[in-house]
Amino acid sequence: METKKLKIDVCFSPYLYPVYKDNESIVVVIDILRATSAICTAFEHGAEKIIPVATLDEAKAYKQKGFLVGAERNGEPVEGFDFGNSPFHYMGEHVKGKTIVLTTTNGTRAIETAKDAYKIVIGSFLNISALCDFLISEKRNILFLCSGWKNKFNLEDAVFAGAVTDEISKRSTYYDMGDACLAMKYLAQMTQKNPNKFLNHSSHKERLAALNLKEDVRYCLTPNQTKAIPIYKDGALIKMVNG
Amino acid sequence: METKKLKIDVCFSPYLYPVYKDNESIVVVIDILRATSAICTAFEHGAEKIIPVATLDEAKAYKQKGFLVGAERNGEPVEGFDFGNSPFHYMGEHVKGKTIVLTTTNGTRAIETAKDAYKIVIGSFLNISALCDFLISEKRNILFLCSGWKNKFNLEDAVFAGAVTDEISKRSTYYDMGDACLAMKYLAQMTQKNPNKFLNHSSHKERLAALNLKEDVRYCLTPNQTKAIPIYKDGALIKMVNG
Repeated sequence: METKKLKIDVCFSPYLYPVYKDNESIVVVIDILRATSAICTAFEHGAEKIIPVATLDEAKAYKQKGFLVGAERNGEPVEGFDFGNSPFHYMGEHVKGKTIVLTTTNGTRAIETAKDAYKIVIGSFLNISALCDFLISEKRNILFLCSGWKNKFNLEDAVFAGAVTDEISKRSTYYDMGDACLAMKYLAQMTQKNPNKFLNHSSHKERLAALNLKEDVRYCLTPNQTKAIPIYKDGALIKMVNG
Repeated sequence: METKKLKIDVCFSPYLYPVYKDNESIVVVIDILRATSAICTAFEHGAEKIIPVATLDEAKAYKQKGFLVGAERNGEPVEGFDFGNSPFHYMGEHVKGKTIVLTTTNGTRAIETAKDAYKIVIGSFLNISALCDFLISEKRNILFLCSGWKNKFNLEDAVFAGAVTDEISKRSTYYDMGDACLAMKYLAQMTQKNPNKFLNHSSHKERLAALNLKEDVRYCLTPNQTKAIPIYKDGALIKMVNG
């Protein structure tokens, strides 16, 4: 008897999520440049909780209540908040033990979009190995949700989904890949030797380079800086307790 | 002074079209397996006009009026119509000079989705070189619209968009590629040696193989069987008169 395979697929835009969603899949939200990289960094540096909000108005309301609030729009920090979404803002003693509120152009909206999923976890190159271990251990369908750029496909989110798929498919034969996953797995295999070079022509990388954020890009593409897997529970992200 | 570049991008699903659409772009509708391949074949064999309709009800109404009607759902011909969407159905004397009505699971819906575009043309491997010549000569923004499979990404449509992008970017430096186009260009370069092998694991190819349609797949992946470029005018596709 053949075992029923698990599904693994990737949705390239929050706008497309209704087409891909089901009640069975673990959703991995991806916003490599830079929201999900920043979130993973914050947990590595001891943040207690991150509350993702979709709008600046919600973020302001939290700020007025005294929360630490990060806000980014179009790649830049929004005035009147504590920081933007550079991972470097989320390192150090000031985040330790804290609840942080975060709103970004794409990433926090993707989390909002998927909020009714069976389980939502946060992926980035920074926690890629821990994420693969977790996903394989769960034995569930997997759906990568790329935040994209204003609902358009973006290269770095999609390639990350492919990199995770590549690793998982090397370690487990239980998964049946959707076409999008298959395409991104091939693409990720091409990038492995030099992801930084590969992404050279991507639109968002150019956008960030124009904002003098090359260091951010380099950091966000560096694998395995943390074992933290942020998971969404009751409206907030917390660090999953493993094992 | 730097000339303003033209945009070239790819939209992976009709569902995502509202995110990508503008009033400037030539939209290239793609449904490699098999609607746009069938359409190109029909014009090569002398069809006069193809009226794409989104629903079976519309198709039935045309059938009752005496039109030749092709109808496909889920890869199979629909009973009560003249043919499905196999390109082999659209070869020969019975299509010559005729107006054909066509409804398919994905392709004709994609045409319907883009109907307000500046210009809609039909792409397939069968007319790829003629299509590239035309697109370059137009000096306009280009948007590939993949029909996908039930609004999900599919490999063969996306790879075709990448193949056209690859060819155009070799011949012209006027275009600024969106991330989706860039990714598919890389992917198409990987497939060039053997597209049939590359697509071996694609979901739609498997679907068609299960329906004994391997010959269809082989034909639909064969480049340059026609110079016909179908173009959408006043609710119907006609063969563009070149030059």
